Amino acid sequence: MGVVVNLEGGKRSAATMARLMELTKDDMARVNELILAKAGSDVELIPELARHLISSGGKRLRPMVTLAAAQMFGYAGEGHVKLATSVEFMHTATLLHDDVVDESDMRRGRKTARMIWGNQASVLVGDFLLGQAFRMMVDVGSLEALDILSTAASVIAEGEVMQLGVAKNLETTEDEYLAVIKAKTAALFSAAAEVGPVIAGATRGDRAALRSFGANLGLAFQLVDDALDYGGNTSELGKNIGDDFREGKVTLPVILSYRRGTQEERAFWKQAIEEGACDDAALERAIALMHRHGAIGDTIGRARHFGEIARDALAPLQDTPQKAAFFDVIDFCIGRVA
Amino acid sequence: MGVVVNLEGGKRSAATMARLMELTKDDMARVNELILAKAGSDVELIPELARHLISSGGKRLRPMVTLAAAQMFGYAGEGHVKLATSVEFMHTATLLHDDVVDESDMRRGRKTARMIWGNQASVLVGDFLLGQAFRMMVDVGSLEALDILSTAASVIAEGEVMQLGVAKNLETTEDEYLAVIKAKTAALFSAAAEVGPVIAGATRGDRAALRSFGANLGLAFQLVDDALDYGGNTSELGKNIGDDFREGKVTLPVILSYRRGTQEERAFWKQAIEEGACDDAALERAIALMHRHGAIGDTIGRARHFGEIARDALAPLQDTPQKAAFFDVIDFCIGRVA
Repeated sequence: MGVVVNLEGGKRSAATMARLMELTKDDMARVNELILAKAGSDVELIPELARHLISSGGKRLRPMVTLAAAQMFGYAGEGHVKLATSVEFMHTATLLHDDVVDESDMRRGRKTARMIWGNQASVLVGDFLLGQAFRMMVDVGSLEALDILSTAASVIAEGEVMQLGVAKNLETTEDEYLAVIKAKTAALFSAAAEVGPVIAGATRGDRAALRSFGANLGLAFQLVDDALDYGGNTSELGKNIGDDFREGKVTLPVILSYRRGTQEERAFWKQAIEEGACDDAALERAIALMHRHGAIGDTIGRARHFGEIARDALAPLQDTPQKAAFFDVIDFCIGRVA
Repeated sequence: MGVVVNLEGGKRSAATMARLMELTKDDMARVNELILAKAGSDVELIPELARHLISSGGKRLRPMVTLAAAQMFGYAGEGHVKLATSVEFMHTATLLHDDVVDESDMRRGRKTARMIWGNQASVLVGDFLLGQAFRMMVDVGSLEALDILSTAASVIAEGEVMQLGVAKNLETTEDEYLAVIKAKTAALFSAAAEVGPVIAGATRGDRAALRSFGANLGLAFQLVDDALDYGGNTSELGKNIGDDFREGKVTLPVILSYRRGTQEERAFWKQAIEEGACDDAALERAIALMHRHGAIGDTIGRARHFGEIARDALAPLQDTPQKAAFFDVIDFCIGRVA
């Protein structure tokens, strides 16, 4: 499972999540219990739908980041488990609403909740999970953590609305796209990392370091996801290649290919993304064009760039097992596609 | 504008919201400013859609309840304005998601946001407003108020999911229906009323009184709404008669008519509600059946019952202008249909 990644030409050791998983194993067991407990309801549909999401085999990277970030600064209480669970609920609520908004049929190789229980239940159970997330945060009682996570909730929604504007618009610049993923993906990673030092009572500098680490890890993560959708290892992600393409999503590989393309190629992209001519032959051509223009490689290059910023954010911190685990996670995120 | 209501046979004075509006006029001006400020975003679509909702002429009853409930116990700070705005945002977010879930075309006589900007924007702007609501609550800094409002957010969503199960199910009992509206409508009224005494540092008894007042006012309010949909004064509500009927909603007037009906009438209800045979002729027959079985009158009777409980909840409190205004509001809610 260990993937050896070449970063900036130098060899880095096994890029896996093993270290992070090991460090957070006990805490994650409690997160998983809490997820089940807080997704419970007398309204049958809620636990049923929640169970579908919970068993869908996500990596639970975000809550692990929260847990390790709290451990890193010697946090000894119970709050990090609740905050980590809140973070995962916020993420799950976003996925539920995303699938409705994107009209997605599949996620991680499985039918989406909306395909099984309908859009209505997906919207409402998402609202319920968000409510439960806030209740858990309130239970922890840190107004600073509440501030960070509630701000993230607003920013994420803002990012999703921004994405509606970008959708199927091939004139989107790389900068505009970055603004979208900063809001819709990086904000939650950033908040997940920052609340750790916050409840541990760490310094402002430590908080800023973790916040920056999280935000840049989130950007790297999203860009690698974008690249994977056009040729990553499907079996590992459980997501079909070409999902973004078929949904007409304008992601960085598309943006770069479009901007670097010939007149005739741009016409192809318009037909595919804007007019929905996105059958398998079109997908094949899209991937070929991406490789011709180095769009996949450069998307991964951008991800590496943010990965390096995430690494430097943590650099001045004391060497701890958590810091080493976070370095691994950066490499792992990028290694998924390398 | 003054409606004289007959409650339990005795005459009550002008049942209007005038007193409540007068008491909260200055605070509401600040709520309205805050609504505009917090619905702002660089993402164009958000303020545009928010403006549509804000100008839609809702009565803003919930925030007024929060403001007056804080005044009632001598609250002198700024927090009640923020909490009142949060309550209105939570309400607005629910409306946005509701209209998507119910596939509603019209609300208060105007096109719903989803008809103008689509379901996607409605889901996401709802999420944004909910996030902004939590940020404002966090800003106030009362963990107790946060607890009450975040719990309400979960309960409301739970109620909405519950309603999906009830939808188009004519076997729904009155008790089941009450459980739904307790969660989806009464919970927010209850929270809106309770956070007033909470930030004013009132006693547990005072908190309980306001909580109970709010919950029962909410139930009365919803039941009157249900009755109005089959014959209330359209021009005042701005809502077309028969909206619930055409959406196949199982509300109390339907539940009572169905349970009290003949075999043949039940077949009619099944066709109308479950199978969508709900044209104007069917609506006319539905209303006739409701009157034949006293279903409208008894729905209003149930509303009166909860109105009386709301009144008694406040009875032991010291006489204040706010208490008098709340009594008026109970009468006003029921007076809409009397």
